[in-house]
Amino acid sequence: MIKVGIVGGTGYTGVELLRLLAQHPHADVQVITSRGEAGVPVAQMFPNLRGRFDLAFAVPDIKQLGACDIVFFATPHGVAQAMMAELLATGTRVVDLSADFRIRDIPLWEKWYGQKHASPELVGEAVYGLAEVNREAVKNARLVACAGCYPTAVQLGFLPLLEAGLVKPDSLIANAASGVSGAGRQAKVDMLYAEVSDSFKAYASNGHRHLPEIEQGLRAIQKADGEPAELTFVPHLIPMVRGIHATLYADLVDETVDLQKLYEQRYADEYFVDVLPAGSHPETRTVKGSNFCRIAVARPLGRNRVVVMSVIDNLTKGASGQAVQIMNIMQGLPEKTGLENLALLP
Amino acid sequence: MIKVGIVGGTGYTGVELLRLLAQHPHADVQVITSRGEAGVPVAQMFPNLRGRFDLAFAVPDIKQLGACDIVFFATPHGVAQAMMAELLATGTRVVDLSADFRIRDIPLWEKWYGQKHASPELVGEAVYGLAEVNREAVKNARLVACAGCYPTAVQLGFLPLLEAGLVKPDSLIANAASGVSGAGRQAKVDMLYAEVSDSFKAYASNGHRHLPEIEQGLRAIQKADGEPAELTFVPHLIPMVRGIHATLYADLVDETVDLQKLYEQRYADEYFVDVLPAGSHPETRTVKGSNFCRIAVARPLGRNRVVVMSVIDNLTKGASGQAVQIMNIMQGLPEKTGLENLALLP
Amino acid sequence: MIKVGIVGGTGYTGVELLRLLAQHPHADVQVITSRGEAGVPVAQMFPNLRGRFDLAFAVPDIKQLGACDIVFFATPHGVAQAMMAELLATGTRVVDLSADFRIRDIPLWEKWYGQKHASPELVGEAVYGLAEVNREAVKNARLVACAGCYPTAVQLGFLPLLEAGLVKPDSLIANAASGVSGAGRQAKVDMLYAEVSDSFKAYASNGHRHLPEIEQGLRAIQKADGEPAELTFVPHLIPMVRGIHATLYADLVDETVDLQKLYEQRYADEYFVDVLPAGSHPETRTVKGSNFCRIAVARPLGRNRVVVMSVIDNLTKGASGQAVQIMNIMQGLPEKTGLENLALLP
Amino acid sequence: MIKVGIVGGTGYTGVELLRLLAQHPHADVQVITSRGEAGVPVAQMFPNLRGRFDLAFAVPDIKQLGACDIVFFATPHGVAQAMMAELLATGTRVVDLSADFRIRDIPLWEKWYGQKHASPELVGEAVYGLAEVNREAVKNARLVACAGCYPTAVQLGFLPLLEAGLVKPDSLIANAASGVSGAGRQAKVDMLYAEVSDSFKAYASNGHRHLPEIEQGLRAIQKADGEPAELTFVPHLIPMVRGIHATLYADLVDETVDLQKLYEQRYADEYFVDVLPAGSHPETRTVKGSNFCRIAVARPLGRNRVVVMSVIDNLTKGASGQAVQIMNIMQGLPEKTGLENLALLP
Repeated sequence: MIKVGIVGGTGYTGVELLRLLAQHPHADVQVITSRGEAGVPVAQMFPNLRGRFDLAFAVPDIKQLGACDIVFFATPHGVAQAMMAELLATGTRVVDLSADFRIRDIPLWEKWYGQKHASPELVGEAVYGLAEVNREAVKNARLVACAGCYPTAVQLGFLPLLEAGLVKPDSLIANAASGVSGAGRQAKVDMLYAEVSDSFKAYASNGHRHLPEIEQGLRAIQKADGEPAELTFVPHLIPMVRGIHATLYADLVDETVDLQKLYEQRYADEYFVDVLPAGSHPETRTVKGSNFCRIAVARPLGRNRVVVMSVIDNLTKGASGQAVQIMNIMQGLPEKTGLENLALLP
Repeated sequence: MIKVGIVGGTGYTGVELLRLLAQHPHADVQVITSRGEAGVPVAQMFPNLRGRFDLAFAVPDIKQLGACDIVFFATPHGVAQAMMAELLATGTRVVDLSADFRIRDIPLWEKWYGQKHASPELVGEAVYGLAEVNREAVKNARLVACAGCYPTAVQLGFLPLLEAGLVKPDSLIANAASGVSGAGRQAKVDMLYAEVSDSFKAYASNGHRHLPEIEQGLRAIQKADGEPAELTFVPHLIPMVRGIHATLYADLVDETVDLQKLYEQRYADEYFVDVLPAGSHPETRTVKGSNFCRIAVARPLGRNRVVVMSVIDNLTKGASGQAVQIMNIMQGLPEKTGLENLALLP
Repeated sequence: MIKVGIVGGTGYTGVELLRLLAQHPHADVQVITSRGEAGVPVAQMFPNLRGRFDLAFAVPDIKQLGACDIVFFATPHGVAQAMMAELLATGTRVVDLSADFRIRDIPLWEKWYGQKHASPELVGEAVYGLAEVNREAVKNARLVACAGCYPTAVQLGFLPLLEAGLVKPDSLIANAASGVSGAGRQAKVDMLYAEVSDSFKAYASNGHRHLPEIEQGLRAIQKADGEPAELTFVPHLIPMVRGIHATLYADLVDETVDLQKLYEQRYADEYFVDVLPAGSHPETRTVKGSNFCRIAVARPLGRNRVVVMSVIDNLTKGASGQAVQIMNIMQGLPEKTGLENLALLP
Repeated sequence: MIKVGIVGGTGYTGVELLRLLAQHPHADVQVITSRGEAGVPVAQMFPNLRGRFDLAFAVPDIKQLGACDIVFFATPHGVAQAMMAELLATGTRVVDLSADFRIRDIPLWEKWYGQKHASPELVGEAVYGLAEVNREAVKNARLVACAGCYPTAVQLGFLPLLEAGLVKPDSLIANAASGVSGAGRQAKVDMLYAEVSDSFKAYASNGHRHLPEIEQGLRAIQKADGEPAELTFVPHLIPMVRGIHATLYADLVDETVDLQKLYEQRYADEYFVDVLPAGSHPETRTVKGSNFCRIAVARPLGRNRVVVMSVIDNLTKGASGQAVQIMNIMQGLPEKTGLENLALLP
């Protein structure tokens, strides 16, 4: 059994990790930490876990965490980087679900996150955790920085186009929308049911923290010789709990390509990426609670602009499921181990 | 592997059966029928099944069904009874999720369902499928009539009180509420999103078809010597997809009993019934997609009236999960096989 | 024009008051207070008010409030009682939407609200603001304590039965359910969209603060000679924004009465109480944003137990609409002035 | 009083018209038709109208309709055009909420709507009903074809940019999303609560019927000398009842313009168009049940692409409110008569 530790288990990515690890045949959660809730049984906070987890939240302890084979960080940004050097020194390996080690350009990180980076010397070592792009590098990594939720949906959607150099790099638009669980389990007026329900809005149109992460990822995917990808990214809030839907637009430079075939071939061997038949529209509910990304590609009226629709569950493929997929790779297990469950529909 | 057939797979209990059977280690779905959708791949209708089921809907064929070890009926009432005699003659065993064989009093069934019963001779043989009450009888049954959704939540809630004879039989009230999936996947104006959302109502207050089934079940549970249980049952429609919440009221005849202890002891060995600590209120989301029933018992202000709150997922413990639990018993498997997954929360 | 002041305008009853007063032909809002948001334009916090209210929140000032004809308190309990004596001394009249002056038994209030009452000498003077019961007393009151949301739905539902002495006083049950706006606009984890959505639960089953208010009201309605009404009251949380649905149960002492006629006659002259035809089930959406209470009465299977279903919008008839109705009475206006708008459906 | 007739009152635009006309001081609804529901009281189908409308649905009768001053068509496409010539001959004036007379290019209409146009000779006379663009022409029109819901939100959003010639005509993208009421009140499986709730999807990405209407409108707005506007339009379905949110993208040809000022000036005299302060994001709930359009404009990271966010209530400004606004203009009333009510929030 893989000995697993979780730092910061009181949020939605924490309870999702526990749900997924409960159905994983080789994982054994040994410790889950929370300073604020130390001593509280996890199943008291999340009653869906009753009967399955007897653990209580513990104060983080490097020694205890260091005794694990894998430690997940399901914390707000800033926490993982503060503990990382000491923790890695114990020899454990880390899968960080937070934004701390995703961006390689440290001043860029510091600008968007508004604070000094506490472990800049580890940023270079961190592997970006999006298996469909970076599988090999993950295998032997000590520290993996899992891709964010919007970045996963957007990058998997643009990937075949950018790899093939088929679109104008400055024409990229990602009109994305997320369910509310993406905002976390924190007491904020604007995430109250009575504020979110039966409404829809954009937010952060002038710059969301996931933009630099996505642009970094898109540029890494591009062919070397082009202009660097530039993205307009407008996120929206959907009155629903789970799911991200990214609607992507780009101007084609080659109008002769068979887009459907391109996507099907690129993802033929990717278990978690499902390219829908031509003419389809993916629904977020078809991936709810599962680790799949479903994608459809269209070219409206045969004009010169491609539209890609990409859906994931932000808590699963966009966070905790992706983290388990990464753990499987790091441990030499089949990637889908413990992640084969189907979406809950309806 | 258990060879499984499903009659009527285009509804919500059908897709839920497929989801659950996909994660069952010993079940192999060999045929799924629908006259109306014959030839359509199930994964086209329910894209969450993509990559997992290659089956297409088939026209029901007794021979093909008869070659299965177990046949589930996930059909509206009237369908199972019309095929049952011929199907049982093949030697297969049947788990019927519909209401066709639940009520032992045939004229009563005919009154509430407004039609002649097509197989009255089989009603006596049918075993009522609520494992927590009827486990032994299920083991060798040829035909099991699974308990309905409201009846499951209400009976499990009243069970300890009635077994112990602690409440006045004519004081029983079940104020129950269900998510919309209970109404099935049929085009009806009053189940449109724009009709149901952001609203709440009672329905069928003057008599719901589940009432005679529940009263039959409650009377079977009662001690032999009392007045027969009489229930006021008012169902309500909740703007949500899955879940039933039953709030039960009864007048105590013995005020000295420790209700919390009574419930905990009664369900100590029932894997799927979870009695919450005193003072708790079960939330339907803690059982979403899982086969658990969560129950809390209270005695407001110490007065003479007991309140029981009981929640299930109407599609899982209230239908398809219960059916798989029944199948496990019939096949001699541990009851929880394939049913251990935790609820999706949030 | 009636000069109106509002104390505490940052909650949902505050914005609802402003919405209703904006369409009132004789009301002019002169001041709206909030210590925490002083200086912030109300239309910045609630953009639906843009173009209609130029007011900014002001620090409460007795002189400024005292210059108004009517002052509404849309505050948490405890605030109104602290300011009341001083404010009434200015000669203004007060409509208090909070719970401060609803309960006449001061120790009872103090027990349920967990604090010392700050103006016990004013409690006796306060008129309970439920026009359908207390219209005459309201006319000349200086201080009206508006009925709470659950209490309004429950009292209007039981009223005809209790006035006529038709039910056993100890058999009363109110199974009520409310939309989320009833919990106010405060940052609480358990009111987040991701916590409330797609779920249903009871709460406060062992005693909700509205219980003593309701029991006081029911007893005031009863014929003098009977046992005092005793209520089992279990509230539930509905995943919707606005609306209360009360399902009421009682045991009949007279089985010969025509319940439908009783209700229709009792409410024939009440503009805001609408008795539905026999066999109906009121939906909360039919009163959304309106000041109506819709009621249906049933007697399931002709048995000896009556079921009443009563719906209101908790923010309108359950709070701010009721307050405007009270203001109209106090000002000698037709009760429905400014309150005739129909519910938003769908 | 204006004598009003409504053809086709059983849908959501029908009940919304009735709600708005109930609060209109000068309108008197004399007849409302439905073949299928003839004889059924409108308040039985829509209980929010109880006590306010005694009308029953009537079979359409030209004479009776012709006696009205204004007849609204709230019908599916194809109905209005079949009755129009005969009805106009009576001398009444018509406000058509359907798509029958919106598109001036008859073959284009026939292609997108898949049927022969029944009154091609009247298309030229019909005035496109979007007051902010076409107010003068509406005044004396006999037949006004109200702008559609998506077209209203998109055109009002792009209007200032196109009038001023500030964007590349082939760079226009409208990523729009609508609540479910836009699909009408028809029994369709894919509009069931259990299908729509807690999910999000695009639809009709390869061509929605509103696309030709929007492109026609945008081209009419453009300066005469440029390339004709070409729009990529992808609609999405939001799990909510009312509201449209359009997120518009275009490439600027002039980067020096003050976009905020441009929008504020363009709409300074438009009562129903509210330009939000810079940095804002309009929420659909701030216009729910009201006739307002709220707009914000942004230029993310100061790059060369403008983003406009435009929200309306699809049933009000997107349909019935717009129709009443048009009626007011036709009758010489102030445009906002009966339409001043504020959005229901929360």
